[in-house]
Amino acid sequence: MATEININSDLGESFGPWNMGNDVEVLKIVRSANIACGFHAGDPMVMARTVRLSVENGVSIGAHPGFPDLQGFGRRVMRFTNAEIEMIIAYQVGALMAIAAANGGKVTHVKPHGMMANMSAEDEDLAMAMARAIKAVDPSLIFLAQAVTPQVTAARKVGLRAAEEVFADRTYTDKGILTPRKEPNAMIHDAQESLRAVKRMIEEQAIFSTSGKKIPCQVDSVCVHGDEPTAVTTARTVRDGLQASQIRIVSLPELQRMQ
Amino acid sequence: MATEININSDLGESFGPWNMGNDVEVLKIVRSANIACGFHAGDPMVMARTVRLSVENGVSIGAHPGFPDLQGFGRRVMRFTNAEIEMIIAYQVGALMAIAAANGGKVTHVKPHGMMANMSAEDEDLAMAMARAIKAVDPSLIFLAQAVTPQVTAARKVGLRAAEEVFADRTYTDKGILTPRKEPNAMIHDAQESLRAVKRMIEEQAIFSTSGKKIPCQVDSVCVHGDEPTAVTTARTVRDGLQASQIRIVSLPELQRMQ
Amino acid sequence: MATEININSDLGESFGPWNMGNDVEVLKIVRSANIACGFHAGDPMVMARTVRLSVENGVSIGAHPGFPDLQGFGRRVMRFTNAEIEMIIAYQVGALMAIAAANGGKVTHVKPHGMMANMSAEDEDLAMAMARAIKAVDPSLIFLAQAVTPQVTAARKVGLRAAEEVFADRTYTDKGILTPRKEPNAMIHDAQESLRAVKRMIEEQAIFSTSGKKIPCQVDSVCVHGDEPTAVTTARTVRDGLQASQIRIVSLPELQRMQ
Amino acid sequence: MATEININSDLGESFGPWNMGNDVEVLKIVRSANIACGFHAGDPMVMARTVRLSVENGVSIGAHPGFPDLQGFGRRVMRFTNAEIEMIIAYQVGALMAIAAANGGKVTHVKPHGMMANMSAEDEDLAMAMARAIKAVDPSLIFLAQAVTPQVTAARKVGLRAAEEVFADRTYTDKGILTPRKEPNAMIHDAQESLRAVKRMIEEQAIFSTSGKKIPCQVDSVCVHGDEPTAVTTARTVRDGLQASQIRIVSLPELQRMQ
Repeated sequence: MATEININSDLGESFGPWNMGNDVEVLKIVRSANIACGFHAGDPMVMARTVRLSVENGVSIGAHPGFPDLQGFGRRVMRFTNAEIEMIIAYQVGALMAIAAANGGKVTHVKPHGMMANMSAEDEDLAMAMARAIKAVDPSLIFLAQAVTPQVTAARKVGLRAAEEVFADRTYTDKGILTPRKEPNAMIHDAQESLRAVKRMIEEQAIFSTSGKKIPCQVDSVCVHGDEPTAVTTARTVRDGLQASQIRIVSLPELQRMQ
Repeated sequence: MATEININSDLGESFGPWNMGNDVEVLKIVRSANIACGFHAGDPMVMARTVRLSVENGVSIGAHPGFPDLQGFGRRVMRFTNAEIEMIIAYQVGALMAIAAANGGKVTHVKPHGMMANMSAEDEDLAMAMARAIKAVDPSLIFLAQAVTPQVTAARKVGLRAAEEVFADRTYTDKGILTPRKEPNAMIHDAQESLRAVKRMIEEQAIFSTSGKKIPCQVDSVCVHGDEPTAVTTARTVRDGLQASQIRIVSLPELQRMQ
Repeated sequence: MATEININSDLGESFGPWNMGNDVEVLKIVRSANIACGFHAGDPMVMARTVRLSVENGVSIGAHPGFPDLQGFGRRVMRFTNAEIEMIIAYQVGALMAIAAANGGKVTHVKPHGMMANMSAEDEDLAMAMARAIKAVDPSLIFLAQAVTPQVTAARKVGLRAAEEVFADRTYTDKGILTPRKEPNAMIHDAQESLRAVKRMIEEQAIFSTSGKKIPCQVDSVCVHGDEPTAVTTARTVRDGLQASQIRIVSLPELQRMQ
Repeated sequence: MATEININSDLGESFGPWNMGNDVEVLKIVRSANIACGFHAGDPMVMARTVRLSVENGVSIGAHPGFPDLQGFGRRVMRFTNAEIEMIIAYQVGALMAIAAANGGKVTHVKPHGMMANMSAEDEDLAMAMARAIKAVDPSLIFLAQAVTPQVTAARKVGLRAAEEVFADRTYTDKGILTPRKEPNAMIHDAQESLRAVKRMIEEQAIFSTSGKKIPCQVDSVCVHGDEPTAVTTARTVRDGLQASQIRIVSLPELQRMQ
């Protein structure tokens, strides 16, 4: 059984005068931050602030690139060529790298956001374009990839380190992808239920669909969301529960498997 | 007298379906390219294309960050705090760095664009914010700074290498800044006149105002513009004329003074 | 003494996934809504929602155009030509007119936002450009203009009806403009103090500077802000206090002076 | 046989410093202009300029709304809810209406742009959302709809006047939609061939697929494109050829069928 795990969260999703989430509290709990890069959320000032908070809390920093659709928060279907996908990812990762450098931090992983993530969880071609982009920018970056999806295989194919991620507050279909948000049972709102699901996934190194199907995978990182009202409670419950079970919570670069 | 000089041009200023300038021809002549980073012009695909063309022509690559005002091409006055200036420059420089890395190139200098450049040619505070941003992203970057302006002193104060730039197709006021574009004699349209002006500036290591005032400076780089109809002719005439006078045309990193 | 007054508020300032203010509550109190038009805040869906809420509450609808600077919320200095100002105002007002038509409402006034408002409170030329734009789009529109500023005279010069506005939660300088937000006494945070200030302005038909100077004006409308935590309380206190003094609260088109 | 026809073109597709097409020449030939509204191309100044040029040439004005994707010129697939489609169309149509009013013109029709047009040529639901939006903004607007597609039926269902449009420089599939641009025979580049195709469509009141299939329709308007190098020649050849065949070229509001 795994004795260490990473906890990550999507952060830095404010923009200009608008606030989203509770980054200050979430950053006290998680060990890796996926920071929005200005296309679907985030702006240079928000990115800088989130990097500084991450550094202060010893949280490892990742880029969270998304589709260029601020109004739609990167959650709408958009079709790009692979060449476009590669360059919009490179652009965003590089932007955060420089903001990080200017604020005492360093980008060590990349995790795609929203519809870009959803589409690449079912589309090998898109997942490969993303992996090539990350590799081309910096081959030492870790691809924080959704477990059981083409993201994982794409990362490995291009020679990137892949950390496999499961979700604390989302459920899975039999195909191993997330139950779409519009379905009633897509979200797990109860913190104790989240903890139970996470412990089971870690213990069995597998995800489980709502119908009960077991799909084996490597469980490296657990995602807790920062923008739900219950986010902080869930994050804290999961973190405390795992620690109580003697599971060490580490940042992505500290994961033994990543080294 | 200087035996070597750099020639630079502002390039990659197309956006989406819209073309600007004649980058293919200009990149055969100049030795350093200042590439727009997506805020006032350029997009990830245009940036990638311009990097690849630069690499093919052995032209050194610089970031050309501007104000976030695509419709106004970064030529409108906008007021930012120094902290905002630092982060919007870091963001743009980093974005180009990653696009460069993914396309076989490397960013070796930074030159501000448009109104950001004009304002920092008269505002020490703004010039210092820009210099700090560049330094913070990568201290080995060269600040391609407008000769005789606070950009030069700011670069040196923070410990960056500064290359001092003069313009082949623009005239100067007695204060040593560019004659505003709306004035009738702001531009030099005749290629031979541009060459004469450039040779004089290099020989005397000074700029000369329209009223005849001589303002001493170091002349490291000559800017030729890519978006005027006469740009290619001017660039070629200046390049050929300087070479005929035994002046070696080099990229910014090759300049002896930069090493 | 005036027996009727309008209360207005800046609303519809959410964008995409980000919420701002408490429009549902504020729209139960005010009689006119200044709705953001997508340049500094608001998007087509937010605009539609705010129009529908306004219609449900019998609140008259105004366009609240701002500078095209979403990240800066239209609060940064930007310099435009007068021709540009005219067209960016026309564009925004027209966009809201159509959204209103499609949602059972009608735009009856225009009030400029943020830095565009501040600059035109001191710049006659800019105020005239704004007035010309509103007139050109629809000469029956009311210009909700900041009392004692060139906005009022510009509106009258071009032949628009001007409603003169005072602020419930802001203080004034001796020149009759708003104390800048960065100064300590710029805001009035106490609801009772706001009510007293508003009653005095209505009774004496004048504004009063922080130093005690009285500057006579016509007081047609009182602005209460929607984005401060105390906004709803202030709005309600002012509304109730004025009604208790037998002052009728009306929408802008219902104002006798506007007819 | 029809004795009158409209010729339309997509215009006002410049943005900020970037020019597209040759609007000055095309507006001397066509009788109706579809003007970009700022989402996929166009900005308030470009819109104003294009309106004034249209008015000077007696050309009727239409809104040409597109997806909010400037970099992709509205040609990428994006998925919106119907409610979003309705409001982004209303927003754009209204913006142009106000710009038109401020420049001596009047919007009399609407034609969707790019991928929004392509998708609604095969998706009844989307076409209905578009038709509802146009109706809700102003029921007297003409829907310039692609012949044989759900756009035509949607327009009629909601009670809008529909003008059916065929293309002078594009070919058709057996389903009656445009051959995708990436296929080799998608475009007709020869002006005489365009004229022959247009005359045949008018004479037979039908479109013809590349395989020879005849699909009957009403032919009210012919679209010539403004952004191809051969556009002006094609437009002129088609116009002159039709006039030589005693076909009167009219604006959309002048079409007998529209009255």
